[in-house]
Amino acid sequence: MSLVVVGSVAYDGVQTPRGRVERMLGGACTYIALSASYFTQVRIVAVVGEDFGEEDEALLADRGIDLAGLARVPGKTFYWSGVYSEDMNDRTTLRTDLNVFAEFRPELPPHYRQEPYLLLGNIQPSLQRQVRRQMDGVRLAGGDTMNYWIEGHRQELLETIRDWDCLLINDSEARLLSGEKLLRRAAEVILEMGPRVLVIKRGEYGAALFTKEFHFAIPGYLLPDLCDPTGAGDSFAGGFFGYLAEQGAEGGGAETDPALLRRAVVYGSVMGSFCCERFGVDRFRTLTRAEIDARYREFKALTGF
Amino acid sequence: MSLVVVGSVAYDGVQTPRGRVERMLGGACTYIALSASYFTQVRIVAVVGEDFGEEDEALLADRGIDLAGLARVPGKTFYWSGVYSEDMNDRTTLRTDLNVFAEFRPELPPHYRQEPYLLLGNIQPSLQRQVRRQMDGVRLAGGDTMNYWIEGHRQELLETIRDWDCLLINDSEARLLSGEKLLRRAAEVILEMGPRVLVIKRGEYGAALFTKEFHFAIPGYLLPDLCDPTGAGDSFAGGFFGYLAEQGAEGGGAETDPALLRRAVVYGSVMGSFCCERFGVDRFRTLTRAEIDARYREFKALTGF
Repeated sequence: MSLVVVGSVAYDGVQTPRGRVERMLGGACTYIALSASYFTQVRIVAVVGEDFGEEDEALLADRGIDLAGLARVPGKTFYWSGVYSEDMNDRTTLRTDLNVFAEFRPELPPHYRQEPYLLLGNIQPSLQRQVRRQMDGVRLAGGDTMNYWIEGHRQELLETIRDWDCLLINDSEARLLSGEKLLRRAAEVILEMGPRVLVIKRGEYGAALFTKEFHFAIPGYLLPDLCDPTGAGDSFAGGFFGYLAEQGAEGGGAETDPALLRRAVVYGSVMGSFCCERFGVDRFRTLTRAEIDARYREFKALTGF
Repeated sequence: MSLVVVGSVAYDGVQTPRGRVERMLGGACTYIALSASYFTQVRIVAVVGEDFGEEDEALLADRGIDLAGLARVPGKTFYWSGVYSEDMNDRTTLRTDLNVFAEFRPELPPHYRQEPYLLLGNIQPSLQRQVRRQMDGVRLAGGDTMNYWIEGHRQELLETIRDWDCLLINDSEARLLSGEKLLRRAAEVILEMGPRVLVIKRGEYGAALFTKEFHFAIPGYLLPDLCDPTGAGDSFAGGFFGYLAEQGAEGGGAETDPALLRRAVVYGSVMGSFCCERFGVDRFRTLTRAEIDARYREFKALTGF
């Protein structure tokens, strides 16, 4: 049950209270793909420049990720850098060099087009829409977005998410998109916009999932150590969607099993928690499925009553 | 299994995005006592002035709360007023008139002194300590504190909480008290200070409980409506401790049953969530135990996977 992932592959410069890394592999597509690769076959669509390192490509390939849709074009890879606040709940962007990403026009290799699962990382909504239309018979389509598109490209965004089964955003984005401050009210408004499933990521405070029939919430996994939160939200999305793909979740016209959605939220949280333990994608260099399943069980013990 | 509650009984002026109330019954002892009264016999120790209204006293008495320890002295009742931020996660104090509370010296009526449960609301640590010493054979003693005492009266506070079974504070207070930013690390440090059980209240994000043997976390109940968060933390404490008292929880030398502690955290959250639905203590005028138990079950359904 393959999952097609579209988004940015980038280099990041990150400073947190735990240290500083000038340049490391990053980007939403990278985190989503690495995280989802523990659950299902992943095929990515992204663009990088001539400076993209062989070792970085190898990391993705070693996780079994299909790179047929990874375009290599003249120029430099997208670069972003930022610095985190003392508690790591906020960050300030220092630099954004779009580079080759500015001209990114996602083209799906033919063998991607019949895959049943599609996860669209945060890119321009019109591009997300074009990708969605290149896919035939998608069973479950989901995506992320951000404040920039909600505020500046609202109509385009609304037309885009109307076709999605699942929208994954954070709490401030949910409030901005809905105009409602209370999460439950925000969810009611957003579920009228098209998506049948809304996942709200709440950083260290966990996540909540809403459908018109039920909602579900979990606290964040209480990390014994926090190194770098970069990519945690995308790792969450990768775990959530990867698990649904692994389990062959039904979408489209059909209802997704609530029990499956709940477990997917927990797997998403687990993947986000692992991501924060090292800088950038480093945790994924050693992480095993056994560790993931052990933390899932720990999570169950931690929250059960 | 009676619970002795010590703290402030006050009048509050509150402004939230939902409205404004110039003067209403408030104070930590009030919220704790009202909340705990759904679970167990409560006996309060507090002080009010000549302006304390009969209808306010009647509200407490009607909930079966023992007012033998409520001193009425010349002067005015403690008055506090504040205004909440748009998302109600922050508040600014506009006025604090201690009035008769400035001279509060808690004296326990003789029939309070052998009670097994003691919950000390946020007052000066040396006073909390004096109360603790007036009690013989307490089975479970707990209390709250605040930034003011942590920063300005640290030694006095440390000497006070050393004798407690349970400390209930919010996350920023836990970070301040421990000097650690990560909740799990903060808890490790605080559990070395004396309390065997640490409950960290996280406002809309729920709560976490730590002992040296295990920890437990729940998300906040997702309110369909939020009117006024004043007293939610104290209502949490009242529900948590009230439930433990109702169940005859063991403390002192003995270990408290982990399953009991977990359920107590959920009952605490449930009581905090009800408190937010109306201004001040208004929700407690109509709330029933059946509603509480129904929300507990809803909470279980909302968080189970």
